[in-house]
Amino acid sequence: MPIRAIAVGRPEEETHPDTLKAALAEFISTLIFVFAGEGSGMAFSKLTGGGPTTPAGLIAAALAHAFALFVAVSVAANISGGHVNPAVTFGAFVGGNISLLRSVLYWIAQLLGSAVACWLLELATGGLTTAGFSLSAGVSVWNAFVFEIVMTFGLVYTVYATAVDPKKGSLGTIAPIAIGFIVGANILAGGAFTGASMNPAVSFGPALVSWSWENHWVYWAGPLIGGGLAGLVYDFIFIDQSHEQLPTVEY
Amino acid sequence: MPIRAIAVGRPEEETHPDTLKAALAEFISTLIFVFAGEGSGMAFSKLTGGGPTTPAGLIAAALAHAFALFVAVSVAANISGGHVNPAVTFGAFVGGNISLLRSVLYWIAQLLGSAVACWLLELATGGLTTAGFSLSAGVSVWNAFVFEIVMTFGLVYTVYATAVDPKKGSLGTIAPIAIGFIVGANILAGGAFTGASMNPAVSFGPALVSWSWENHWVYWAGPLIGGGLAGLVYDFIFIDQSHEQLPTVEY
Amino acid sequence: MPIRAIAVGRPEEETHPDTLKAALAEFISTLIFVFAGEGSGMAFSKLTGGGPTTPAGLIAAALAHAFALFVAVSVAANISGGHVNPAVTFGAFVGGNISLLRSVLYWIAQLLGSAVACWLLELATGGLTTAGFSLSAGVSVWNAFVFEIVMTFGLVYTVYATAVDPKKGSLGTIAPIAIGFIVGANILAGGAFTGASMNPAVSFGPALVSWSWENHWVYWAGPLIGGGLAGLVYDFIFIDQSHEQLPTVEY
Amino acid sequence: MPIRAIAVGRPEEETHPDTLKAALAEFISTLIFVFAGEGSGMAFSKLTGGGPTTPAGLIAAALAHAFALFVAVSVAANISGGHVNPAVTFGAFVGGNISLLRSVLYWIAQLLGSAVACWLLELATGGLTTAGFSLSAGVSVWNAFVFEIVMTFGLVYTVYATAVDPKKGSLGTIAPIAIGFIVGANILAGGAFTGASMNPAVSFGPALVSWSWENHWVYWAGPLIGGGLAGLVYDFIFIDQSHEQLPTVEY
Repeated sequence: MPIRAIAVGRPEEETHPDTLKAALAEFISTLIFVFAGEGSGMAFSKLTGGGPTTPAGLIAAALAHAFALFVAVSVAANISGGHVNPAVTFGAFVGGNISLLRSVLYWIAQLLGSAVACWLLELATGGLTTAGFSLSAGVSVWNAFVFEIVMTFGLVYTVYATAVDPKKGSLGTIAPIAIGFIVGANILAGGAFTGASMNPAVSFGPALVSWSWENHWVYWAGPLIGGGLAGLVYDFIFIDQSHEQLPTVEY
Repeated sequence: MPIRAIAVGRPEEETHPDTLKAALAEFISTLIFVFAGEGSGMAFSKLTGGGPTTPAGLIAAALAHAFALFVAVSVAANISGGHVNPAVTFGAFVGGNISLLRSVLYWIAQLLGSAVACWLLELATGGLTTAGFSLSAGVSVWNAFVFEIVMTFGLVYTVYATAVDPKKGSLGTIAPIAIGFIVGANILAGGAFTGASMNPAVSFGPALVSWSWENHWVYWAGPLIGGGLAGLVYDFIFIDQSHEQLPTVEY
Repeated sequence: MPIRAIAVGRPEEETHPDTLKAALAEFISTLIFVFAGEGSGMAFSKLTGGGPTTPAGLIAAALAHAFALFVAVSVAANISGGHVNPAVTFGAFVGGNISLLRSVLYWIAQLLGSAVACWLLELATGGLTTAGFSLSAGVSVWNAFVFEIVMTFGLVYTVYATAVDPKKGSLGTIAPIAIGFIVGANILAGGAFTGASMNPAVSFGPALVSWSWENHWVYWAGPLIGGGLAGLVYDFIFIDQSHEQLPTVEY
Repeated sequence: MPIRAIAVGRPEEETHPDTLKAALAEFISTLIFVFAGEGSGMAFSKLTGGGPTTPAGLIAAALAHAFALFVAVSVAANISGGHVNPAVTFGAFVGGNISLLRSVLYWIAQLLGSAVACWLLELATGGLTTAGFSLSAGVSVWNAFVFEIVMTFGLVYTVYATAVDPKKGSLGTIAPIAIGFIVGANILAGGAFTGASMNPAVSFGPALVSWSWENHWVYWAGPLIGGGLAGLVYDFIFIDQSHEQLPTVEY
């Protein structure tokens, strides 16, 4: 399987300073993303006195995550590829676009970034709870499992089509917006049922800081399966034609 | 009538593997789009206990469809042209930009994608109803007919101007955003009256899964007439000058 | 004063077929824009039983106008320059970027497009009122005058900086988004006071169809003064250096 | 430390007419930004009779600031670099990308633009209060300090990654959108606690016009520390490799 550039097209380099800088970029981007995303949920609690989620609250969460992920992907794009999500890194690994070592470093950086964001939120709000992801009433963990698989499939498929695919063309310019906005769209659907994580790091930080791990596995298993599946489907069907040995075939 | 590239400019190729891949891309894009769009309506029902649509609910639906269609068009753009809508495919066919065979395959893929999205939503929500499109109180089917024609005219006209027109220039870069956002804008108007489908596939999936076909014809007739009209108007007035045989005229 | 390309850079051509096509493009774009924008107000009335504007209603109006204007400018950009607004056409005329004849044709097309959009909305909603713009309680016509001048100054200044300025560079790619979104931002401020028209065509259609002309002059005078001022300021300070006769100076 | 182009890549020039034009562009952009942003808060007060902030009010504020800052950065990008924020100018100065003289002129222009916007809002609304930034109940000034540092770090880091970094590539095209939207995302989090200024000019105008300076220092100290930190981090870790004297190293 060929090694290809991941996300906004930088060749993979395993020299140490670059890899460490990439991990730092993932750490900072995940921190920025989780600070705004998780913070928007705490702002809703603050304004409503801890009231139940309303349609306006769902819109606020969707916009905060969409806008912040768009930016977080943008600012890391040319340094680390702009994953900001262990499921994206896993999807890239499954498709052969990133090495194992770099993947592990990215995962650590993403989880750390999320944890530090939640700790800063706790500090900045004077000790409010960073609420962990949980299932709404009447939603089973298997419902959530389906939700997270389908939604993360869409997210990682978007990453592949707009940022990894060598024939992406001008789509590369708007790739970070597309990646952010598919998360926003999915939150408007799944947010009322599972919280709509699509990202193990996003679930990990609040779970760690508030030490609540109920059903936590579904926010890892769902995204990793959905993301891995998207990587395989896109890579083998829409990109991989190297076995044909036809260098002149453009498509 | 000349054959031209449709949507983000790939030459039409009738070789089988490419056509099947294009149909698969339409299937996946329509699934992603309908999952978020229809899911946002189910989320509103979940949060409000099945309450009537509010302005906040309309905003949530508009953003979910705008964001998700933008992404669905993006991720299929370089593979299938990113139609994600039988009315767009019909408009492209009417303007001579896609063959009959490929159109039929696209329609099947789009309808299947919508149906599978609704089935997955039913599974993921533990059996909630995927509500079919219906008319608001005081809205006749002929009112809806006018709404769907005008709104789909705007949508397909946008596809032609930003993605099909050979002189689109840098507009091609933001074409998927424009295509998604005109649907979002129209939902903020028509959503309170007809549901604002503009897309027979979007209406078909929920109707099939919930088996409710009342007034269903208007969600086919309106979009196909509006979309076909837009294809004819744009193609003959703003593009087609081939009869003049003036290859040096840029416009 | 030099003749320059207006909006997304096409040279001015006074050949008749092109000018008529440009006017047709303005007509269609204004129709698409007003249908969604004015329709969003009617949707709010429908959902709330004619209740007073709420923050959610203001957000819906802002998004509908922002998204629809972005699209309306995009789809006309390469044909007419994408004015969709008599104040923009006036600002372009004042800056020497469009001829008088073409300006008059654009105005007629824009006013007609808005009127037809309102008539179609009346038809599609079964006869609901297309509410004209009016002042909120406690807002004088002179307050509105200041609001419309400042807001339209910002809009036309944006058109000049992102679409007219020869040194716009890659800003031209996102110009239609910027033009749409400054209107959305201003509606979130001025919409609660004056309705935030910034566009005489947008005010003319509803006034004509509902035949309510109270304070109508302010929706012409404000935008034309603000738009004309922006054209003069931008053109003479930030563009016009032709008197220096220094062809090698890039800026 | 090398002098580099700041924001959308113009070489620094200290000739007087250009510097004054740049300051004028900063003045106009800040005016446009604050008029819409601060105006959206006054619109919320108008519609709710001065009621407490709701989630819908927070969304309105976030969208108004996101959209208007995106536009304000765009329209000044090619003239002044599109700072529209003393913290951004400070971050650029700290990273060695702008001279001291130009920085001082920018600050004056930004503060003046904000003050004039607030004065125009008072005039246009018939004397309504332009409310200064303040802390929500239960939020200490040290909480606000942390909030403003973290949020402004994210903003200025975004400016560096998308607009200053020489290897930004196609990110430069969407840089103004990213810069606007990170502010929108952060308002959805911090807006419920500190008002989420991230910009001393945005806080200065309302404070001056309403003459309320309580805790005003935190809206200067927080953004300047966060912005300066971002400038240092990005510049030294992700850009600065000039000491290596390896002109052929692309990254």
